[in-house]
Amino acid sequence: MYVKNAEIRVRYAETDQMGVVYHGNYYTWFEVGRGEFFNSLGFTHNTLEKDGIILPVVESYCKYIKPARYFDDIIIKTSIESLKGIKLTLNYKVIRKEDNLLLAKGYTTHVFANKDVRPINIKKYNRKIYDILEKCINQT
Amino acid sequence: MYVKNAEIRVRYAETDQMGVVYHGNYYTWFEVGRGEFFNSLGFTHNTLEKDGIILPVVESYCKYIKPARYFDDIIIKTSIESLKGIKLTLNYKVIRKEDNLLLAKGYTTHVFANKDVRPINIKKYNRKIYDILEKCINQT
Amino acid sequence: MYVKNAEIRVRYAETDQMGVVYHGNYYTWFEVGRGEFFNSLGFTHNTLEKDGIILPVVESYCKYIKPARYFDDIIIKTSIESLKGIKLTLNYKVIRKEDNLLLAKGYTTHVFANKDVRPINIKKYNRKIYDILEKCINQT
Amino acid sequence: MYVKNAEIRVRYAETDQMGVVYHGNYYTWFEVGRGEFFNSLGFTHNTLEKDGIILPVVESYCKYIKPARYFDDIIIKTSIESLKGIKLTLNYKVIRKEDNLLLAKGYTTHVFANKDVRPINIKKYNRKIYDILEKCINQT
Repeated sequence: MYVKNAEIRVRYAETDQMGVVYHGNYYTWFEVGRGEFFNSLGFTHNTLEKDGIILPVVESYCKYIKPARYFDDIIIKTSIESLKGIKLTLNYKVIRKEDNLLLAKGYTTHVFANKDVRPINIKKYNRKIYDILEKCINQT
Repeated sequence: MYVKNAEIRVRYAETDQMGVVYHGNYYTWFEVGRGEFFNSLGFTHNTLEKDGIILPVVESYCKYIKPARYFDDIIIKTSIESLKGIKLTLNYKVIRKEDNLLLAKGYTTHVFANKDVRPINIKKYNRKIYDILEKCINQT
Repeated sequence: MYVKNAEIRVRYAETDQMGVVYHGNYYTWFEVGRGEFFNSLGFTHNTLEKDGIILPVVESYCKYIKPARYFDDIIIKTSIESLKGIKLTLNYKVIRKEDNLLLAKGYTTHVFANKDVRPINIKKYNRKIYDILEKCINQT
Repeated sequence: MYVKNAEIRVRYAETDQMGVVYHGNYYTWFEVGRGEFFNSLGFTHNTLEKDGIILPVVESYCKYIKPARYFDDIIIKTSIESLKGIKLTLNYKVIRKEDNLLLAKGYTTHVFANKDVRPINIKKYNRKIYDILEKCINQT
């Protein structure tokens, strides 16, 4: 399975008055991981959009294990959980770099859609992209 | 079951370049719903914090059905899904006010914790709060 | 001078670990004020965009006087500071509703631009919009 | 003058429906620059907070020159504009890495305050921190 690492440092803006990162911001981090994942495959989120393909999120989930704090170095590990003709599920692990501690994990499910936000079957619509994604799952 | 409505209007800052509300922002809306829910019971999130109780999120989930757009009037319907001694799960429905369309739904699960972020059993720690929450589930 | 009030309640997500609203979020509040201001004149930000006019921000400023806190009720007072053919400056006052205390004030300067983000002279491009805005300054 | 560079990549969440970065997010980038600036001097924002010193923002300003877009690599150049006993003004330049284009510039002014958010004279309160900051201005 192909896993791509993205690195960020926690921003002050991302904390809340509990003194830790606001829970909603992990979804932005997932998206950072996703962007780096796609980019490492040769297409950015942007490029997919230029190819007329968008990936609206239809489901998202996060389990919070330990809080992240201001200025923590964070690694987001992104991989593909499942790929179907019209749906893609990505997995994320949020890890504190300093001690490799798992802070959170979750997933996002996306549909492949064209610019009019109509669902498309990526296998038929753009076989090349499908094959690249498919290879990520079976890669050893 | 007791349901509390909160109302917001979509902000420009909440949109992304897809022209719709960024998926991560729905969790902020859930939190707005949660704040109004607690407030309507006589304690704000703040007050719980003043009582030495915090409610860190341990899980969150959202299913996106239709996109929200800039300046849409949104209703967030919040209710309690389940209440245990140390855990509370809240349910949310995000509805477009104009036509009553369900845009998204989801939940957040919280633990009751003291100021040192140690889990507490709310039923033992503060029976009054437990009873108020418990009544929300069985209310007809 | 025409002044439009917008009301919001502070969100948990808007606080930071200092226990008060993160300074950058006031610009989102200015934008909320701006949206309500335009809407009250009969065109929303959206509608301007539908008319082929966008209002990119070219300058923004905020002076912070007193901190806003979670669940505070906030009034944003928006008015026009100056209007030229290609530039529009809006003024904002951020007030705590409870005691009418001025928490912050600032401005944003915008250029009128068409969909290709080329500056336009609104007085020539759309006199009707210019007149509506111009009237806001001189209104008594 | 001492200048510290910070690097970020534009996030999807930071864009708005105009297809570019939402103007309010530049202040978060300024804060990223500020955090790296302080960190490079041997104290993080956090550490200052641990030393009982906080730096609330009393003024912020940004001039937007060219828009930043999704996945752009951005350099934030931070330096000290002025330092007085109770006030500190930092300067920021936001640059697109690819072609060294200046996208925006601005400043933030802070007061030195203790944990009770009372203004302090840093020169008297903590001469060591004052000297480190003072050296940043005169450094050649």
